[in-house]
Amino acid sequence: MPPKRIRLDKAIVTESDRLAAELAERYDRAGVLVMNLMSSPGAGKTSLLEATARSLSDRFRMACIDGDLATDRDAQRVRKAGMPCTQINTGGGCHLNGKQVRDALAAHRLQDLDILFIENVGNLVCPAVFDLGEHRRVVVSSTPEGDDKPVKYPVAFRLADAVVLNKMDLVGATDFVVEAFREYMDEIKPGLPVLEVSCKTGDGLAGWFEWVAAARDAVGRKVE
Amino acid sequence: MPPKRIRLDKAIVTESDRLAAELAERYDRAGVLVMNLMSSPGAGKTSLLEATARSLSDRFRMACIDGDLATDRDAQRVRKAGMPCTQINTGGGCHLNGKQVRDALAAHRLQDLDILFIENVGNLVCPAVFDLGEHRRVVVSSTPEGDDKPVKYPVAFRLADAVVLNKMDLVGATDFVVEAFREYMDEIKPGLPVLEVSCKTGDGLAGWFEWVAAARDAVGRKVE
Repeated sequence: MPPKRIRLDKAIVTESDRLAAELAERYDRAGVLVMNLMSSPGAGKTSLLEATARSLSDRFRMACIDGDLATDRDAQRVRKAGMPCTQINTGGGCHLNGKQVRDALAAHRLQDLDILFIENVGNLVCPAVFDLGEHRRVVVSSTPEGDDKPVKYPVAFRLADAVVLNKMDLVGATDFVVEAFREYMDEIKPGLPVLEVSCKTGDGLAGWFEWVAAARDAVGRKVE
Repeated sequence: MPPKRIRLDKAIVTESDRLAAELAERYDRAGVLVMNLMSSPGAGKTSLLEATARSLSDRFRMACIDGDLATDRDAQRVRKAGMPCTQINTGGGCHLNGKQVRDALAAHRLQDLDILFIENVGNLVCPAVFDLGEHRRVVVSSTPEGDDKPVKYPVAFRLADAVVLNKMDLVGATDFVVEAFREYMDEIKPGLPVLEVSCKTGDGLAGWFEWVAAARDAVGRKVE
């Protein structure tokens, strides 16, 4: 790799880091917990947010920033479930960046929120290396994708604070072995919470809601 | 965006294009059909290659180059099904590039092959914009991902020569509506072949094998 290339890469990372730090400071000043959700396309990030909107709206003031290459389908779904949501369209962009998030924040009053979710572009690779200043990072994986995803996409799983394993209702119809998934996760990041859920049937979602509430409490204490 | 950044981006694209043209010329000189397979993680590219190896090995001399962030699990599966396969590990890289493919070609005698498959990194975004000199580009989509993927990831679907819709065995267990998927595809690229298959049960694979054979014939004629 020629030296010029290295210098430019470094400059880009630094700008990205600066923005992430600016966002993190802004979240903390407002006392809002920010969670960055990432997954393969169709793993169930939006379904998880719909369920969260329906079940936790009485308890927390929540909002969402949603990233997609195209359409505002996901934002519409989240809004319909009762959570304010701003759609970012990246065009061809493979991840959300700090500038897009900063721009989208204009639509939200952070100090009036308890939790802000960022639903990243469906992509198990690129979003993992872009810090959006979030407090918690959640990877949603789903049983039809196969139980070997943690070892095949280690970066995203290694940088996560929790894994939501969705579509447990389909586990019997696939070759997915829950124990194998958990063993692969132990290989990549031992001790990471793996929450088995089905957004379709609702099974296991109580565990997710509890995890969200605990994260909210932890950040709350930090701010006070 | 500062002018320096624009110039560098342009230079990178040009180098990538040059490599793609070099690869395309090499494929044509050897008279080998090259197919670039892309999809979300876990949609079934490897399963499709396993089925293809098992069913078409008597008819075509085939080989595979497999791209993954980590592990050689996919290459092992393809080899076990009877197709020689070279694994590329990208580290964190979100797509295969021309240089990686060129290096991997050293392990294959192209002139002794009828078909070379390139299984790209599981990612429905980035691989779409990197030309590897291939003759045909196939997107594998799967029913549990949801029927709206063509409109949400339009770039990959628009640049495809065919879509293999896998995991049709799970369609009854999900909210996937085949007609909706086909309508979204018509919106993105009217007339594109959409081949419904289940790599698990084997249903529909005959249509895929036929499409592969027709593509092989078409490229064969071009070379002669």
